[in-house]
Amino acid sequence: MTSFSTPNPNPMVGAVVVKNGQIIGEGFHPKPGDPHAEVFALRDAGENAAGGTVYVNLEPCNHYGRTPPCTEALIAARVAKVVVGMVDPNPLVSGKGLAKLEDAGIEVIVGVEETACRRLNEAFCHRILHHQCFGILKYAMTLDGKIATSTGHSAWVTGTTSRQLVHQTRAGCDAVIVGGNTVRRDNPHLTIHQATGRNPLRVVMSRNLHLPQEANLWDVQVAPTLVFTEWGKNPSLQAELRSKGVEVLELSPLSPAQVMEVLYERQLSSILWECGGVLGAQAIREGVIQKVMAFMAPKIIGGVSAASPVGDLGLEKMSDALLLESVILRQVDQDILVEGYLNYGGQK
Amino acid sequence: MTSFSTPNPNPMVGAVVVKNGQIIGEGFHPKPGDPHAEVFALRDAGENAAGGTVYVNLEPCNHYGRTPPCTEALIAARVAKVVVGMVDPNPLVSGKGLAKLEDAGIEVIVGVEETACRRLNEAFCHRILHHQCFGILKYAMTLDGKIATSTGHSAWVTGTTSRQLVHQTRAGCDAVIVGGNTVRRDNPHLTIHQATGRNPLRVVMSRNLHLPQEANLWDVQVAPTLVFTEWGKNPSLQAELRSKGVEVLELSPLSPAQVMEVLYERQLSSILWECGGVLGAQAIREGVIQKVMAFMAPKIIGGVSAASPVGDLGLEKMSDALLLESVILRQVDQDILVEGYLNYGGQK
Repeated sequence: MTSFSTPNPNPMVGAVVVKNGQIIGEGFHPKPGDPHAEVFALRDAGENAAGGTVYVNLEPCNHYGRTPPCTEALIAARVAKVVVGMVDPNPLVSGKGLAKLEDAGIEVIVGVEETACRRLNEAFCHRILHHQCFGILKYAMTLDGKIATSTGHSAWVTGTTSRQLVHQTRAGCDAVIVGGNTVRRDNPHLTIHQATGRNPLRVVMSRNLHLPQEANLWDVQVAPTLVFTEWGKNPSLQAELRSKGVEVLELSPLSPAQVMEVLYERQLSSILWECGGVLGAQAIREGVIQKVMAFMAPKIIGGVSAASPVGDLGLEKMSDALLLESVILRQVDQDILVEGYLNYGGQK
Repeated sequence: MTSFSTPNPNPMVGAVVVKNGQIIGEGFHPKPGDPHAEVFALRDAGENAAGGTVYVNLEPCNHYGRTPPCTEALIAARVAKVVVGMVDPNPLVSGKGLAKLEDAGIEVIVGVEETACRRLNEAFCHRILHHQCFGILKYAMTLDGKIATSTGHSAWVTGTTSRQLVHQTRAGCDAVIVGGNTVRRDNPHLTIHQATGRNPLRVVMSRNLHLPQEANLWDVQVAPTLVFTEWGKNPSLQAELRSKGVEVLELSPLSPAQVMEVLYERQLSSILWECGGVLGAQAIREGVIQKVMAFMAPKIIGGVSAASPVGDLGLEKMSDALLLESVILRQVDQDILVEGYLNYGGQK
């Protein structure tokens, strides 16, 4: 089954029914309104599910929403055991599904591969717990910390495999954000043409709306584009963009936090910041970046004035640096990817 | 056996004699003038060496120097087999030791763990092949490519384990080089107090000799210090430094290549550049850096004007970047170490 929809704002959930060491049913939650993963997996297993074990990455739900509670389906199917990756992150319902299953005499095991399960739904968890979108800052730099040469040339810092992985990351995000400089300088597509999946919403932040009349991002046949600017800026370009199908929103003052608020209200969860150092630094200062994905190419370009990935944060001592936690190091062909979660400490 | 001497300018060689699956003799070459590794290992094995196998990382020598040829010792000991990591890098003698052994009826296997053997003696090989010292540029930066904050504060970028590894690296090098800025700003010791071994020669390059009268590097009781400056600069400080036992050499114009030439003539092989971005870039431009050791701390400090590890190289396009080859990625506690060899392409 190939599905280019995503469950957002619901979490990604998959379930497997196992009996006598054999997988007898599988399912996942494709999109809001559709049945949950457990229901698909139990349907797949049929009568045979009785006495089996269900593995599921997230605690089964215990409430009536657009679909009946999964706990009831599991009890009705008379499964013997349920193995759960993580409890529901919503503190209001957390643990209630598990208690219901245990009350029905089903053996319940919780916290298996919990770290992987939390990572899979990190944006969903952040949304539930903090009522915010989950911000990911992605950049590509040389081993000497430059995202471009002194003259601004940047194509390409990393290799094709890293760039494919960026496309794949975009496919897993709900929106991608860049600033006006990136549009003027790189004329990006911000699509996922090197991966399969769904194009994210493409978001541009431009305070003065000094943007070109023609740009790849204005072709909304490919993917939707949303431009944020401040009140009353460049009305003729605003009109032209709207006539092309680009959505334009005016917010004053324009800030990363305000943009993230709008995206949150639109039910988006994971937002990929592919901007330059100035906007990236502003997003960090406002606390809207939770995760950093730093791609590094094993090359030296040099340059005292060559741009580096993060602009001014106002930190004067090295001991004030923002630490990354749960860091994962990956070799991506010849490049290196470092991923981690920003710890704002007392600063957020 | 604990030895704080090094074999420099000879290579590091170790040998093991094995018979019936047991190690019966071990040896290494401690320093010039002492017997070679094979001789120590054969002595350790005694009569029992006959019929055994000798493992050695470098081709046994076949000429009379300060000690008799190892090939003769191996033949006299009637070993059955010799397993060699790599042939002698000197094209004038390469393979001759192996041929001598084979002529004597000894089975010879070459190229076992060759990459590791080449790395072990990379400075020696470079010296033999290129008649130059081997330059290693080491730096420590944040994940956003800064070696200090915007105000110049840099203590510390990386954690204690990385800093211990730097001390260990110094112990394996013949000299450490910094520029005047580093002396003025950091007042470093450049010793190996967090490791065991021998302190390297500490080298300072200062064109104008605007250096403090008191500095940790002027205490030559700890380790020798050599200061390079240009002709006639700051004669009073020159006199004062000399009175403290610091060697001062005048070279005009002062350049990394000239300094490396002097160190080569003094029989040094591996030179660790622990300098800032300006001097590091000059050393790269002059082709005296062969290897890069980039330590990265998983933290974000930001700063448009914060220093990055490599200054201007005059490269305008990203495609002109100098590539690193044979890259090795290591996790050093919370930090990341990327090591690789600079490919100057047509530029060197």
